[in-house]
Amino acid sequence: MILTLKKGTSPETIDTILNLITEQGAKAKHVNLMDKDLICIDAGKTVDLKAVTGRRDVLSIHHVGSAYKLVSRKYQPDSSIIKVGNVEIGGSGLTIISGPCAVESRDQIMQIAELVKANGAQILRGGVFKPRTSPYAFQGMGEEGLMLLKEAGETYGMPVVTEVLDEIGFDSVVDHVDIIQIGARNMQNFALLKKAGNCLKPILLKRGPSATIEEFLLAAEYIMANGNPNVILCERGIKTYEPMTRNTLDISCVPLIKHLSHLPILVDPSHASGDRKLIKSLSLAAVAAGADGVMIEAHNNPDQALSDGPQSILPERLMEIKEAMNRIAEVLAV
Amino acid sequence: MILTLKKGTSPETIDTILNLITEQGAKAKHVNLMDKDLICIDAGKTVDLKAVTGRRDVLSIHHVGSAYKLVSRKYQPDSSIIKVGNVEIGGSGLTIISGPCAVESRDQIMQIAELVKANGAQILRGGVFKPRTSPYAFQGMGEEGLMLLKEAGETYGMPVVTEVLDEIGFDSVVDHVDIIQIGARNMQNFALLKKAGNCLKPILLKRGPSATIEEFLLAAEYIMANGNPNVILCERGIKTYEPMTRNTLDISCVPLIKHLSHLPILVDPSHASGDRKLIKSLSLAAVAAGADGVMIEAHNNPDQALSDGPQSILPERLMEIKEAMNRIAEVLAV
Amino acid sequence: MILTLKKGTSPETIDTILNLITEQGAKAKHVNLMDKDLICIDAGKTVDLKAVTGRRDVLSIHHVGSAYKLVSRKYQPDSSIIKVGNVEIGGSGLTIISGPCAVESRDQIMQIAELVKANGAQILRGGVFKPRTSPYAFQGMGEEGLMLLKEAGETYGMPVVTEVLDEIGFDSVVDHVDIIQIGARNMQNFALLKKAGNCLKPILLKRGPSATIEEFLLAAEYIMANGNPNVILCERGIKTYEPMTRNTLDISCVPLIKHLSHLPILVDPSHASGDRKLIKSLSLAAVAAGADGVMIEAHNNPDQALSDGPQSILPERLMEIKEAMNRIAEVLAV
Amino acid sequence: MILTLKKGTSPETIDTILNLITEQGAKAKHVNLMDKDLICIDAGKTVDLKAVTGRRDVLSIHHVGSAYKLVSRKYQPDSSIIKVGNVEIGGSGLTIISGPCAVESRDQIMQIAELVKANGAQILRGGVFKPRTSPYAFQGMGEEGLMLLKEAGETYGMPVVTEVLDEIGFDSVVDHVDIIQIGARNMQNFALLKKAGNCLKPILLKRGPSATIEEFLLAAEYIMANGNPNVILCERGIKTYEPMTRNTLDISCVPLIKHLSHLPILVDPSHASGDRKLIKSLSLAAVAAGADGVMIEAHNNPDQALSDGPQSILPERLMEIKEAMNRIAEVLAV
Repeated sequence: MILTLKKGTSPETIDTILNLITEQGAKAKHVNLMDKDLICIDAGKTVDLKAVTGRRDVLSIHHVGSAYKLVSRKYQPDSSIIKVGNVEIGGSGLTIISGPCAVESRDQIMQIAELVKANGAQILRGGVFKPRTSPYAFQGMGEEGLMLLKEAGETYGMPVVTEVLDEIGFDSVVDHVDIIQIGARNMQNFALLKKAGNCLKPILLKRGPSATIEEFLLAAEYIMANGNPNVILCERGIKTYEPMTRNTLDISCVPLIKHLSHLPILVDPSHASGDRKLIKSLSLAAVAAGADGVMIEAHNNPDQALSDGPQSILPERLMEIKEAMNRIAEVLAV
Repeated sequence: MILTLKKGTSPETIDTILNLITEQGAKAKHVNLMDKDLICIDAGKTVDLKAVTGRRDVLSIHHVGSAYKLVSRKYQPDSSIIKVGNVEIGGSGLTIISGPCAVESRDQIMQIAELVKANGAQILRGGVFKPRTSPYAFQGMGEEGLMLLKEAGETYGMPVVTEVLDEIGFDSVVDHVDIIQIGARNMQNFALLKKAGNCLKPILLKRGPSATIEEFLLAAEYIMANGNPNVILCERGIKTYEPMTRNTLDISCVPLIKHLSHLPILVDPSHASGDRKLIKSLSLAAVAAGADGVMIEAHNNPDQALSDGPQSILPERLMEIKEAMNRIAEVLAV
Repeated sequence: MILTLKKGTSPETIDTILNLITEQGAKAKHVNLMDKDLICIDAGKTVDLKAVTGRRDVLSIHHVGSAYKLVSRKYQPDSSIIKVGNVEIGGSGLTIISGPCAVESRDQIMQIAELVKANGAQILRGGVFKPRTSPYAFQGMGEEGLMLLKEAGETYGMPVVTEVLDEIGFDSVVDHVDIIQIGARNMQNFALLKKAGNCLKPILLKRGPSATIEEFLLAAEYIMANGNPNVILCERGIKTYEPMTRNTLDISCVPLIKHLSHLPILVDPSHASGDRKLIKSLSLAAVAAGADGVMIEAHNNPDQALSDGPQSILPERLMEIKEAMNRIAEVLAV
Repeated sequence: MILTLKKGTSPETIDTILNLITEQGAKAKHVNLMDKDLICIDAGKTVDLKAVTGRRDVLSIHHVGSAYKLVSRKYQPDSSIIKVGNVEIGGSGLTIISGPCAVESRDQIMQIAELVKANGAQILRGGVFKPRTSPYAFQGMGEEGLMLLKEAGETYGMPVVTEVLDEIGFDSVVDHVDIIQIGARNMQNFALLKKAGNCLKPILLKRGPSATIEEFLLAAEYIMANGNPNVILCERGIKTYEPMTRNTLDISCVPLIKHLSHLPILVDPSHASGDRKLIKSLSLAAVAAGADGVMIEAHNNPDQALSDGPQSILPERLMEIKEAMNRIAEVLAV
């Protein structure tokens, strides 16, 4: 359940209400979300709410039975729209995020930014702190790469997104990008999720490779429960026994999440498949399944890319994918 | 490799050629496919082909490096079109197979047949021998159900498909249906695959819940290598850790198989998801990914269905799904 | 629930009792198991049993809430012991089944039989009808191999086990072997399970690579519900994302099945791992977890084996494994 | 490959050597491990080592072809023994770590510490910063719990281990515990792995629920490559489709890791199974497979535990498990 409190309810009163619930053995957490004071109550136990529902300072109650609450469509029936510069994610249009796996040099990111922009991408991606399985692999350009990404975004008028790997990195990145990505391996890095909740910067949260849909929504709940409603979900494939693709794109996750949550959901066909010849088909399938957009890795020279070359497409192919995606979106809008 | 032999090559000559290959330690199998004599050679070892390629009775060689050969697009670049009555599967149009999980009574199958026909389905499905996890669950109507399915198909002018569970059942079913289904649990029932290869009846082969795409194609290869080219593949979800869906639809399998094989591929969103509210989204995603059609369970009274009720839709919903599917197919055709 | 009927209850009376249950909407099945007449009632619905429990011909009721009933330890608290010649599977001692993946020649099977016998194996295995993923792979020696396996067993005084792939094969094999194996790919081949239930020959049932433990027990239930109580379970690894082993041995399955069922359970470390260097460790782990024995592939020349060479050990290594297994069994017996 | 440099090689010389390798397009990293200067070279490309192997400052070359290098048994053939107080992990004896999932109160941790000590545990575990899937679940006692854990360890003469969730937490915990745990969800939290590498405190690294064995070893490599050789691995189950256990214990991982790496490996049967009735069997299987010990959750009142009650045993059961484990270790030592 979620209680909405009257504006200006004092901290003492909030504590009183929390106590009325927790002394019954239930869990309750005060959440301040965009100036609204809420109390989220975990559904584990039956709680007698009479003591709180009669109070003047409790404006309304949302009955949300699932473990996740604020991200649930039962709490907020209307789809969330996350604004990033001129771009709206989760609205009526589709979002295309594109760019290289990693920023490799000024020339590289500027060239790719120009090309993906010209081919229809609205947001520029580029990794600067790379989570790499091996300590000996290219770890990203770091701060220098961050400045190049920012410059490329400004030059071509695109909001930028990059991944952060830890709390300390978060602080150094947050003022230089428009969206902060929390990667699949960090989906349950709760310290990082809380950090992401303590600001209003849009967060692109990728599903962990072995996370259930419920765990994915609960990771988003961590961010919202700490105060940040600007969460964009991203399905990027789960681990299965099938070896022909890098991961297995869980396409069913898209309509399920649209049903369960008001948050926008993108699909990353590049990491899901690891195979550039599948990118177009999976992008179209994502849109047909109801996704709000896609994140596609593009590189001007995929075979020389320092990471993830085999799954990167040439930026020139984006426009064709975008046009087909838009026509499919029109079919769905009918 | 696949050697195509001259028409009328004698059995003795075929044996001679086989020996020239097998005495080198490689595997070779003579295949008679639609009156063509072929020799399929397994790629395990390097084989010196000079002795056979110079022969007059060897018309051509196809180099097919994968474990599957006859089903490969390297052997046959053009997509196969399987004709079933008036319906073409794998051609330019989409195929919709629909009907109940199980035939339950004359009234039930006749009503559903009428409704799915009126709502755009071209082929009628209905289980009569049901593979059920529990020996105590409803096992299907058997022969009686088969006759009812046949009658319903004839009455409403629809080819019919039903599943067979074993070789003996195959013989009793084959003359009464237009397509024989080999179910997911039997995808590697090699006796049944060989049986299916010994006729020309179209075979709907479902992917096993833990079969890799290569194993799936090799199961189809069993059918073709025994002489039957009329194989229709069907992706129906694989087993993963995600509990919100009955299986996980491996959507990437669709464009991959289109790339690797000339065989048509359908998607079964009903078994993939187990959840009727996902059927439309997954059907559209399937078409967007390149599928040749879908197989959707429909029931006139899903909540009373003897099996798989929760994943069955009302037949009335088919038309809306079909129309959206067709519009997406138009987007792809541009 | 399982009702035990009085000896000699007439077929008409059995029908009457079945009707009293099924007219309430529940499923019920008459089972004749070793001369006992039973009625197994599926737990799906609440059934009013008053009408049947008061009857003189109903001797007792076992409340078995799980989907599997006859295989449950709630029905039979004492562990089953399956006798095969002089060997007892599921008793106080451990069973070692060994032999080659496939019978390849008279010399090969006779040599291996002699060696595995000398090194402590009690039962000889050898495939003659091989389920192979590719139609071009070695399919086994068939009938000829069967006779060689039988001869080897008789020569060295060992019961023999081989896999059957289909109902027709079942009839040709059943009189020549002591145990019939139903392989992992056929675990839900219900026609074959019913066939196996229609005799009293011991059946070695391997877990399917994507079968849950419940599905595994229900496959065994199919055999028992058709009249054959002599079922030996065998865990052989499940499909997961881990590529370093052929499958993932689900060791937890052993104590769970010991808890849930009275049937004996063996472990096949050869197929589970696909790696001969792991066989000893996994065999010991199996025994420590409570398994009744192991099935280990052995070959006198593993690197030349026609199938599964990398997972086969030399027969000479068996004795060392057996001795360590026995000492671990002693630890457990304390 | 790993180059061992002469003691006292200057930073400039190290840079020169690094350049000789990286200018060939390979990756190389200088590692200072226990006062030894090493250069780890990634195997991706063929590197001409003539320029470096002839140098006087290069003492030796280890050819380690795998992606992980310092953790490989090819680099260090002898098993590592990690000393924690009086306890040796990875030596000839078995290690038992036990204690509650979470520290809940002074009374609770003191009582459990006394009991697990009396029943044979050598090391005390207790979570104080809990990684919880839901933001509304009990998040642990934090600093207060840390001090209680430390006190309990000192009172009963046991080294203590607790999990840290992030870099900042690492600093606040490191001086108060004897072993720092990096949990399964953080196995690829590279910032945390690097932090763990920058000290000499023993690190208990748990395998991620979807991590391959190679990824697991590479996570350990991150720690060693940053300077800390004191890594203890812990298998705790992987995610599969099987619902009867919380995870699937990958027992094959134990002998494989013993083969591939010199690091000690423990097994956590509590998280692997989530089911206290399986703890003994899985602990014995772990030892039989070659594990160096186990980590078992114990609680004096499992049904009232604030987290993970169903998988916790009573401390009194530990002694019986320990004695059986030791007897199995004796069998292996023969």
